[in-house]
Amino acid sequence: MADIYSQFMYYEEKEFGIRQQIENMIGKREYEVFKNARKYIYEPGFFRNAPVMNDSVEAMKALNDRYEVFIVSAAMEFPNSLLEKHEWLGEHFPFLSWQQVVFCGLKTVVRGDIMIDDHYKNLDSFIGQTLLFTQPHNFGQQDKTHTRVETWGEIINLLL
Amino acid sequence: MADIYSQFMYYEEKEFGIRQQIENMIGKREYEVFKNARKYIYEPGFFRNAPVMNDSVEAMKALNDRYEVFIVSAAMEFPNSLLEKHEWLGEHFPFLSWQQVVFCGLKTVVRGDIMIDDHYKNLDSFIGQTLLFTQPHNFGQQDKTHTRVETWGEIINLLL
Repeated sequence: MADIYSQFMYYEEKEFGIRQQIENMIGKREYEVFKNARKYIYEPGFFRNAPVMNDSVEAMKALNDRYEVFIVSAAMEFPNSLLEKHEWLGEHFPFLSWQQVVFCGLKTVVRGDIMIDDHYKNLDSFIGQTLLFTQPHNFGQQDKTHTRVETWGEIINLLL
Repeated sequence: MADIYSQFMYYEEKEFGIRQQIENMIGKREYEVFKNARKYIYEPGFFRNAPVMNDSVEAMKALNDRYEVFIVSAAMEFPNSLLEKHEWLGEHFPFLSWQQVVFCGLKTVVRGDIMIDDHYKNLDSFIGQTLLFTQPHNFGQQDKTHTRVETWGEIINLLL
């Protein structure tokens, strides 16, 4: 839902005047790509002002009309992100209620029928259908157990 | 883990100089018992300074040594409680890591083998063993589907 890569690129460009190419990020974790990533995520506003992914609002609205949707976000590692993510959701996804939001550490604790996530560690422990949302860090990895999707439009085609 | 009733009683006594008896709270929701409950929970510090239940630290420590424990707290309705609950856990239960904490709206989204909770609505939707922790609001209700426990000591006796 949030375009965290764009946010990292924006912060890095602001600090160093350079803008890395997506091709250089493939298969690497955010902390390997953006050398000050850990600093950026502790800056007030990093999560609050993150851009929204293309089509994610319309897709979530459509999914929310048809499914019982929960937003599960790994927010516990960065307590400053808790309120920022809450406010961000309220601004961009006002049709989602507080009942539908989960901030957790490990996502192993959630259950459901379908999980959409960009991390193997989250999908691997999930019991149900799993959609791997392509991000530079997971790109190129071969895996037959999850269905790879590249855009929110693809998710809508699959699920609606 | 947190003794929320004591916290409500403390706030009410501070405001009105009265201290209600537990006998008058039986079967009633907090908002029926404490007429300014909704005001208190929005006051900064209400959750941060809540007292810890008797024996809950020792019990959680023992459970944490033996089980994979998750703390699941309905925190989303009151966003100001997010950071306060996080800090409260860090102070009183420092042996629990951020990976083990879940702040949610509806608890229907979590899975596990055993749930300990004081609300029927949370236990009723859980798939697994359920322990109903006695609190004034749930007292007196008859129910055969959950195992009632009155203290953390009883939980230890049951699970360890």
